[in-house]
This record gives sequence, structure tokens and C-alpha cells, in this order.
Amino acid sequence: MKISVSRKEHFNAAHRLYNPAWSSEKNDAVFGKCNNPNYHGHNYELIVTLIGEPDPETGYVYDLKLLSDIINDHVLKQFDHKNLNLDTTFFTNLNPTAENIAVVIWTILRERIESQYELKIKLYETERNFVEYPAH
Amino acid sequence: MKISVSRKEHFNAAHRLYNPAWSSEKNDAVFGKCNNPNYHGHNYELIVTLIGEPDPETGYVYDLKLLSDIINDHVLKQFDHKNLNLDTTFFTNLNPTAENIAVVIWTILRERIESQYELKIKLYETERNFVEYPAH
Amino acid sequence: MKISVSRKEHFNAAHRLYNPAWSSEKNDAVFGKCNNPNYHGHNYELIVTLIGEPDPETGYVYDLKLLSDIINDHVLKQFDHKNLNLDTTFFTNLNPTAENIAVVIWTILRERIESQYELKIKLYETERNFVEYPAH
Amino acid sequence: MKISVSRKEHFNAAHRLYNPAWSSEKNDAVFGKCNNPNYHGHNYELIVTLIGEPDPETGYVYDLKLLSDIINDHVLKQFDHKNLNLDTTFFTNLNPTAENIAVVIWTILRERIESQYELKIKLYETERNFVEYPAH
Amino acid sequence: MKISVSRKEHFNAAHRLYNPAWSSEKNDAVFGKCNNPNYHGHNYELIVTLIGEPDPETGYVYDLKLLSDIINDHVLKQFDHKNLNLDTTFFTNLNPTAENIAVVIWTILRERIESQYELKIKLYETERNFVEYPAH
Amino acid sequence: MKISVSRKEHFNAAHRLYNPAWSSEKNDAVFGKCNNPNYHGHNYELIVTLIGEPDPETGYVYDLKLLSDIINDHVLKQFDHKNLNLDTTFFTNLNPTAENIAVVIWTILRERIESQYELKIKLYETERNFVEYPAH
Repeated sequence: MKISVSRKEHFNAAHRLYNPAWSSEKNDAVFGKCNNPNYHGHNYELIVTLIGEPDPETGYVYDLKLLSDIINDHVLKQFDHKNLNLDTTFFTNLNPTAENIAVVIWTILRERIESQYELKIKLYETERNFVEYPAH
Repeated sequence: MKISVSRKEHFNAAHRLYNPAWSSEKNDAVFGKCNNPNYHGHNYELIVTLIGEPDPETGYVYDLKLLSDIINDHVLKQFDHKNLNLDTTFFTNLNPTAENIAVVIWTILRERIESQYELKIKLYETERNFVEYPAH
Repeated sequence: MKISVSRKEHFNAAHRLYNPAWSSEKNDAVFGKCNNPNYHGHNYELIVTLIGEPDPETGYVYDLKLLSDIINDHVLKQFDHKNLNLDTTFFTNLNPTAENIAVVIWTILRERIESQYELKIKLYETERNFVEYPAH
Repeated sequence: MKISVSRKEHFNAAHRLYNPAWSSEKNDAVFGKCNNPNYHGHNYELIVTLIGEPDPETGYVYDLKLLSDIINDHVLKQFDHKNLNLDTTFFTNLNPTAENIAVVIWTILRERIESQYELKIKLYETERNFVEYPAH
Repeated sequence: MKISVSRKEHFNAAHRLYNPAWSSEKNDAVFGKCNNPNYHGHNYELIVTLIGEPDPETGYVYDLKLLSDIINDHVLKQFDHKNLNLDTTFFTNLNPTAENIAVVIWTILRERIESQYELKIKLYETERNFVEYPAH
Repeated sequence: MKISVSRKEHFNAAHRLYNPAWSSEKNDAVFGKCNNPNYHGHNYELIVTLIGEPDPETGYVYDLKLLSDIINDHVLKQFDHKNLNLDTTFFTNLNPTAENIAVVIWTILRERIESQYELKIKLYETERNFVEYPAH
């Protein structure tokens, strides 16, 4: 009797997409406007999902207030109102695409969430573009 | 060629989260504001999903008007504008968490939906907190 | 050069609509399901709007972080996860309709917002039902 | 390390649901208002999802700008502001239910998306009715 | 102490925009894809607002359940799942633009709503295009 | 018979809020996280409203496709995927608060929209924070 429980949070950040090993022309061709060297930004909507069995004493799979606190302490404090390329250590050598941001968030949270819970990340970069890791 | 079809409905209800076997202090520590003895409430958004193969004569997996009627007759009439703890029989000995409400709704509908259709429930307690049963 | 600035917050509460001067039959006829004596509830979405001129030094009409704090301290702490009829003093002799809740919130905030700012309240009781005070 | 990436697009179209092999009475009984011979219409919201592994050089599973262009060129140009029954060849002998539209769109896109990517379609006919193909 | 109360409803309809006094070329130039002679369609979102003073006995400006019933009986029954050009009498000599539909709905409802209430219509033709009558 | 017609567009941009005449400490005290010298960013949702009388020949107050083109050519091309502080000339000596961005957009569009139409701007910086110019 597995149930998933999900918590939605958000953060606002700047980023630039480019590959430093490439020429400026190739970066423009591949990343277009996202390669603006002065950065652009997004309101990221983040949905964190845990899958497990409800505790018979509480009826909770996981306390979503606690999950919200963990996301705030370990993800939002590092990402909210930040420049993802410059202000965090995660994207020094990793392009901050939505795909890579989702994997980074998954990796951060995986260490803080007990292994009995399956963990999934859904990240909206815009209302029209979003990613899920792991895919299902 | 399996397709899922989904219908979204909503209901407004009051509830209180607590475990009667626990002290008042422990209930406050675990359930916080949700343990208000005078109840609080939510606009629950309910998405019911059926998975099956489309009927070649209609192109429907399931008539969503019929699904809406079944949800109204068997779920909403019991839950909408009700106190989940006091006005229904389901939560006399079961904490009305979103997880437990989703399982109760799944159980109610499973009896009314032919077994050839897989059935899934997604329940939003708030815009930021939601559950899915069974998890996938 | 007047500009309006708005902040959206939310709270979850239980309530019951009825007029204690009326018979049970009349209350049922007028308020229907909303007259459930065991209460029902809503996720209220609250939008608070201030109208004024931007400060030339900040470019702000009003700091929305400060507005959010004021709403939290003076409205949400009293209303969130509460029974509006039983847990607050505002609705002892006032029916907690969306109209009356909006006027109460306006009155609470009007004392905390400097008079140079025009103040407006928009309150969603459900996604489909909402009120604005003052009307415009 | 599979990740899903999704792009949301929309189109506005008219359609009529009926089975030409059936009597008018049977079509009315099964399809109700959707059988209006003068057609009705919808704002269809279309979410196209690709599942694959991120390219280590770009951090993209798939360029969502390219995916948007493919959807526009091969789906929206045929469906947007069209009568699905009369203006397209897909529904001459196929009832344009949401289920069938989703399968048609999947088939169109499957030919344009490299086979290394898993492809999924989610189609909202209204805010309350939607389908997914393949189901998961 | 004027308060506005609003009710959101929706209907799905087909329409075609054109001026029969014009050439086909001019209609194409002005109305583009909206001039498809086979029609296209929309999920119209309709918000009806009444402005008045709350009744001290009920706390209601207007019973939104009653407003919903009036909208259903006098607007939705004529417009939902219909071809606005062919199935209604309103657009025989009037182009069914969002502007004209809003004025027609206002005129229908103005006769059913007591004159003490100010009446306003907001109509979404798509999520990105909407009109309000009267403007404010 | 004045009607308003509205078009929603969006752009993604980076910005930093600060007053160069102030100390770093005062900027931090007033603008908090928004004063990050490496910038942060938003998905801005922009709603442009024109108020006028419908043309009897078209039924349009204004062609929203044309309005969308004007917004794209004169606003989005300058703002989308840009750093508002560095990549535009508007905010060299003006703090790019939502209030100031709204006034800048109003000024840009006012020159391109005939004076017979009243013009209003609504700008969402986040789902919870938005401004309107002129206020109403």
C-alpha cells in the first residue's frame, strides 16, 4: 500500500546556460538567448515527492511540514534569490539546465531523506517547460 | 494500447488530525495546528484516473460524464461541506490525513468501477500539499 | 502616478454559516450545506492590495515582504487552521461569509497600514467564488 | 539516469463526437451535448514528454525549443483553429475524443522524435478532463 | 460599504469570426485563422460580478448558489457545447468576438439581476486573451 | 459602451534591486536577498489591457494578435532573457522594481497604442507579488 506525498516550493534564481569548452558561436547556436553572459532568471517551482507506506499511528507517509523545512534548509537557502552559476558550488563545472538542477536537488535531498522513501523531483523552469527526475 | 483518463472534482470539508491514544501534548507536537479541536478545513481537489483501452465504437476509455456522476454520488455527497471526523463513518477510527482520505476514496470507487480499469487517486489538500494512491 | 501593489497569502479554516435568530428550517433554506452544524472548511486565498506612489529612493510603493509580515502577524495567526466561528472573536455575532471575512480583514489591516495608502481586499473562498472589498 | 523533459503547448479547435454507424438517438444517448451536429470546441492544452539521458555536453535531455518547433510544425499547424472532424484527415473515420486525439498526436510525433527517447502525451480537453497516452 | 461578489463558470463552444459584408480576402486579412469557415472553438471561462451591500441578516451581497443557477439557466444552457454562430439567435447578425459575447451575456443577465446590483462580466476566450464589460 | 481587452505575455529576466547612493548595509537592510550583486531572476507575467469601444465592423476593441505583436516587438525583445540592470537602457538610473518595470512598459506601449485607448499594465513578479499601473 504505497502512497506518494508531495510538497511544492519555489525559488527565484538567475542562471546562464553555456559550455565553457565551446566557442561563443557554438554556445549561441545551441543555447540561444539562454547564453546571455549577463544572465537571465526564473521563478522555479519545485515539487518533491516521497513514496512510502503510511505510519498507522499518524496516517502520514511523511510529515509535509518537516519535508518543507528540509527543502528550505538544504535547497532554498542555497538557491533562492541566487545566481546559480556564481553563488553555488554545484554549477561551477555543470551547466545549470533544469535537468541538472533537478539531479542536484535530488542528490541534496537523498542524503536527508531516509532510504525507505523513494524520492522524486519535478522542476518547472517556466509554466511551459519542466523536468522530472527520475523519469517515470 | 493503454490510455489513462482523468476527471477532476472538488469538495470543501472540515477535519482535525489527532491520535486519540496519545496525550494532548504529543498530538500537538506531531500534528501542530492541524490538531485544533475546533477543526479547520480545506478545498480538496480530487483527480480520479482510470486506465484502460479505448472502446473502438466510442473512442472512450470511460465516459467522463459517467465517472463524474459516480464520484458525485458516492464520494462528494458524503464528503462535500462535511466534517470528515464527525459526519462520515470512515474516520471514526482513522485519522483523516490526505493519505487516508485518498485510500478511503479509492476503496469507495473501486467497488463501483469495473475491475478491467486500473484506478488511481490524486488528492490536493492545499495547492502545495498533495498525495497519490497508489503511488507510481 | 498611483500604482497598486498586491500580495497573495492563504489560510485554511473551518466555518459554519447561519443566523442564530432564525429557525433551523430557515437556516437550511438560506444557507443549505453551508449550515452544517459540524462545520466545513476552505483554503482561503487572500490578496491584499495597497495603492500609492512609489518612493523615488526605493522604487517601492510598499515593501511586499513587510506587507506579508503584517498579514501574517495580524490576520493569518488569528485565522489559519482555525474555526472562524469558535476560535476568533470577530464572528461571535457576525456570520463568517466571505463578504464579512473580507471586511474584517480590511478593518484589521487598515489600522496597521498608513492612511496614505488605499487598501483593498480580495478573498477567494473557492476557485469559483470570491469577493472584493471595497468594490471597484 | 533517465530524466523526463516536458513542453506544454495549446491549440483551439472545434469537434463533434459521434459514431456514423449509429442512429441519432444512440449518438445522443452516448455522446450527449458532444454530439451537436454544428460542433462545439475547446482550448486543448497539450503536454509532450520525452524521457532520456542528459547529453553531458549540453545538460539537455532534449532542446525544448526544438521540441516546441516540432510540435508547432507537425501538430499545431494541422489542429490549431481547425475543425478536427472536417479540416484534418485523421478523424475522417475516427471519433475525435481526447483519447483518440492523444494517440494521433503521439503517432505524428513518434516519427519525428528519435527512437532513443520515450514519448508520452498528456492532453487536457478541459481543466477537469484529461488523458495520457501511453498510460503510466 | 459596497462589496463585489463573483462567480466563475465555464462553457465550451465553437465559433467563426467574419463579417458577411466583406470579401473572403478581407475577412482572412482581418480575422486570420479565426475565419475558418468550418469553425474552431474554446473553453470560455466566465466570471460574473455583482456589486452591492451585504444583507445584515445573511452577510451575503448575493447568494452565489443562486447566481450560479441563473447563469446556468440563462447563459450556459444556450451557449455550452453549442456553435455560437449557428445554434444561438444572438450572433446571427453580430460577430461572436469575446467583446460581443461579453455584452450579450451582460444583457441576458441584466434582466435577471435586480437593478440595485451593479453587474460586470469578465470572459476568458483563452488563458491569454480576455475581456471585461463594462470596462473599469 | 467601453470594454477592456487584455493580452497576457511573459518574459524571463534577471535583476538586482539596490540604490547606488546608499551603503551596502542600507541596501541589504532595505532590499534583503533582492540586493544579491550577482543577480537573481523571475518569470514575469505581463498583462496589457486596452479600454475602448468595439469597432462595429469587426466586433473588436483591438486585435489582440496585433497587440501581442506590439508587445513582442517593443517589450519582450528588449526584456526577455535579459539582465534588466545591464542589458537595457531603462534601468541604468532606475531601480528595476516591479513598480518601475510596469511604468517603463506602460511608457513604451503608450507611444505605440493610439490615444483613444486607455492603457493599463499588470505585472506579476511572482505568483504572490504583482503590481498594476495605473492603479484602479
